[in-house]
Amino acid sequence: MKKLHCFCQSGNAYKVALAMEFMNVPWQPVFVDFMNGQTRDTAWRDGVNPMGEVPVMEDNGRVITQSTVMLRMLARETGLFGARDGDEDDELLRWMLFDNHKFTANFATYRFMKSFGPSAPDPAVMKFMRSRVDAAYGIVNKHLSTRAFMVGERLTIADLSLCGYVFYPPEECGFDIRETHPNIFAWRERIRAQPRWQDPYDLMPGERIAPKW
Amino acid sequence: MKKLHCFCQSGNAYKVALAMEFMNVPWQPVFVDFMNGQTRDTAWRDGVNPMGEVPVMEDNGRVITQSTVMLRMLARETGLFGARDGDEDDELLRWMLFDNHKFTANFATYRFMKSFGPSAPDPAVMKFMRSRVDAAYGIVNKHLSTRAFMVGERLTIADLSLCGYVFYPPEECGFDIRETHPNIFAWRERIRAQPRWQDPYDLMPGERIAPKW
Repeated sequence: MKKLHCFCQSGNAYKVALAMEFMNVPWQPVFVDFMNGQTRDTAWRDGVNPMGEVPVMEDNGRVITQSTVMLRMLARETGLFGARDGDEDDELLRWMLFDNHKFTANFATYRFMKSFGPSAPDPAVMKFMRSRVDAAYGIVNKHLSTRAFMVGERLTIADLSLCGYVFYPPEECGFDIRETHPNIFAWRERIRAQPRWQDPYDLMPGERIAPKW
Repeated sequence: MKKLHCFCQSGNAYKVALAMEFMNVPWQPVFVDFMNGQTRDTAWRDGVNPMGEVPVMEDNGRVITQSTVMLRMLARETGLFGARDGDEDDELLRWMLFDNHKFTANFATYRFMKSFGPSAPDPAVMKFMRSRVDAAYGIVNKHLSTRAFMVGERLTIADLSLCGYVFYPPEECGFDIRETHPNIFAWRERIRAQPRWQDPYDLMPGERIAPKW
């Protein structure tokens, strides 16, 4: 059975956990104590993931990192939520790269500093990061103004990648997409309405932490 | 013939331009006036690339964005510098995702603000971004301490992706990898030694700009 090294605050892990639920793939979570530095530890870097990131998947003796690689692998294995042809494969990957580069990357950093960082965030840094979040969220919000899902009018791994952080409660990032990015909000509700959807805090191990700052 | 919309300061465009040189693929540059806002313009966003980014490739009537998608496409078409099997394909993509997420992403933003931004950079933001650059560069520097290239002991599209910004002169980012990250420096020199290598300022159109700040 696949093992996913994860913790409940990680939207990057949630992307893969939710995909496995939607695809009905049996899996087992392994808790990573990220908040106390487990992924910065030498044992993690040398033994598990030199990139120092969560999630990590163990599957048949193979260790896989990067949520996009896992989502593509799961789509290949199950025949679900993947591309229908080569051009669509490029199109899904294009949005997953944008997600890694900007949409998730900026938001995850912003939310972490806002709620879970080791010290109160610097206002100049937060203002800078917020402008980057808004630029990326603006692009996806506009894209979703004329379509129900990111690519091909059906749920795909591109949606599962981009949605990783949007289900976390607004108090963790300090703004509510229902007000700021209504098309992203409506898309999120379409994903939430899928039969096997689960909240990140129910699907993955670890304790909830109240926003610190 | 393939057209690449690019400008000489864009390391993301350089990744693809250099790949086409190494693969001996004929191509034609189309200058993008990024520095004067062309990619923030409605005509660019609505007509060319909603993600607002450079590079953009035109090929046989198709418009392609995201350097990673272009590099994979070029490797497929030429049979050069790509993966030898499915596992290696995952491994190349894993590093290209890390590049998009952290290695290029943080450095490109840091260098842009340091040298080409519209106003003098905020020291708190620069300090924050520099720590992110150093974290990503440290991971790649360590990875290259025991190998000549990123994956499989030969030049691949993973190297061509990660090397996009390392050839720009040190004064543009304010530090010299020869001193700070010697394994990245040595790897860069191995890439520079390839027969068809060219400097980004020679390979792509646009004027050199002296660092502003």
